[in-house]
Amino acid sequence: MNIARRPRVGHIAFLNCLPIYWGLARTGALLDIDLHRAPPDELSRRLVAGDLDIGPITLVEYLKHADDLLLIPDPAVAADGPVLSVNLVTKTPLADLPAAPRVSLASTSRTGVLLGRMLLEDRYGRTPAYTVTAPDLQSALADADAAVLIGDEALQVFHEHRHREPGGLNVLDLAAEWKDWTGLPMVFAVWAVRRDYAEAHPGLVKDVHLAFRDSVRRSRDEIGEVVASAARWEPFPPAALAEYFERLQFGLSERHLAGLREFASRASRYADMAPLRAGGPEFFAAGPDNSL
Amino acid sequence: MNIARRPRVGHIAFLNCLPIYWGLARTGALLDIDLHRAPPDELSRRLVAGDLDIGPITLVEYLKHADDLLLIPDPAVAADGPVLSVNLVTKTPLADLPAAPRVSLASTSRTGVLLGRMLLEDRYGRTPAYTVTAPDLQSALADADAAVLIGDEALQVFHEHRHREPGGLNVLDLAAEWKDWTGLPMVFAVWAVRRDYAEAHPGLVKDVHLAFRDSVRRSRDEIGEVVASAARWEPFPPAALAEYFERLQFGLSERHLAGLREFASRASRYADMAPLRAGGPEFFAAGPDNSL
Repeated sequence: MNIARRPRVGHIAFLNCLPIYWGLARTGALLDIDLHRAPPDELSRRLVAGDLDIGPITLVEYLKHADDLLLIPDPAVAADGPVLSVNLVTKTPLADLPAAPRVSLASTSRTGVLLGRMLLEDRYGRTPAYTVTAPDLQSALADADAAVLIGDEALQVFHEHRHREPGGLNVLDLAAEWKDWTGLPMVFAVWAVRRDYAEAHPGLVKDVHLAFRDSVRRSRDEIGEVVASAARWEPFPPAALAEYFERLQFGLSERHLAGLREFASRASRYADMAPLRAGGPEFFAAGPDNSL
Repeated sequence: MNIARRPRVGHIAFLNCLPIYWGLARTGALLDIDLHRAPPDELSRRLVAGDLDIGPITLVEYLKHADDLLLIPDPAVAADGPVLSVNLVTKTPLADLPAAPRVSLASTSRTGVLLGRMLLEDRYGRTPAYTVTAPDLQSALADADAAVLIGDEALQVFHEHRHREPGGLNVLDLAAEWKDWTGLPMVFAVWAVRRDYAEAHPGLVKDVHLAFRDSVRRSRDEIGEVVASAARWEPFPPAALAEYFERLQFGLSERHLAGLREFASRASRYADMAPLRAGGPEFFAAGPDNSL
């Protein structure tokens, strides 16, 4: 008998996270997790509020709350170059964008939006006037020169306009732009555990980490099945899904951490957050791993 | 490309349903389902309201809404004799219960509560005064002669009092009493599909049915693992869990259907529901099953 409870873990049911959760539905690992599905922003909020123990958090929110959280090395959502689904869509080629363009932020992804602002202001030297619109292309471009689009809608727009036609829309991949600018990968979301929970239940956190790590490995090994499963339900053909899953990266290497630190250092000028501590980000450490 | 969406399926995260969902987390079947977890009453309500396509529904609610629903042959929650977790707890032996006892209905399970009322009024010849209380033993018996308890709390009370001591509580298993009374199994919950959804998407409904059927079979084959997994998180020792899972039945045989019809016929005197149609209940039929 016991008084344990399953760890409360956040679940993003978006296409880009399918490879992260794929294996959990095949190994039985889900049976030891109290999985909570919600939109990314809601999951970030709940983790910060202590209503979840472990979960995905958009990088910007992690940086704001790094004192209360420890990173888990897997999974993450990142890209070392094009990510296909985080785009600046402009009505004209970038060079013709006005000095003070009207830019729609058609997304609730704080990290993607901040990346768009950084690039527009610091790299392209513009002084945009921002408005927030619904996350579809038509709403976003109705009264704007450009829009930051993120997610499935952005991926759809990328495929429709990847071969630019004269007078057509211009789609700029913001993770590719970030890499051109900094030489580094872009980290969009991390998985973190609340510091108090990790101290109280290191064994459970380690189990969840290993379950996610194994799930991502398994989805890499079974990528054909992952693509076929996604193609059954998502409005993209298998080839587009395969390309997308190949672009996405689901772990944090040293290069990814360098990208994360670079983003953190630039972000503190835009958002209300303290700089990362020296040596940060701080990781959950379970001690010797006897399960390997 | 397609415009399909995953079927919205209800999920009860209670101990008695673990063997129903066990296999879904091992075969990958969850990846083709949009699973919604909620308490049983809430899932019943959502299925009736059309906010779910397929899901568990307590028998009483199914009977009230049988015109809009089709039964799926697996899974179900039933017992042919003792179920251990649906109990009438009395302060005295049953024979000493007053003619007009004060009875707490300490549960939100409408079927278990109705079963308790039927037995008290029609079998034991009492005229109880009912009150609704919190679902714990202490609240339930604070101001009452007896209480209908259901679920984990009822299972706990059963184990604490299964060997009755002089002056101790008396625990009556209502599914065992039902069998003594009628000779039939008791069906507590069924899984149903909305009739309109089944007509529009028979292939998807069939997939979900087969996934549940395979999940239940797998949990039977792997019952030792199911017990070990449950024992990790639930406040019961493995032997108690093994006994519980052995008592629970997860499919509908002809005998179960006879029990369901008998309950429906008696229930219509208590609750606002039309009798089952002749030949009912009506099942989802997917046509020839080519997957077998």
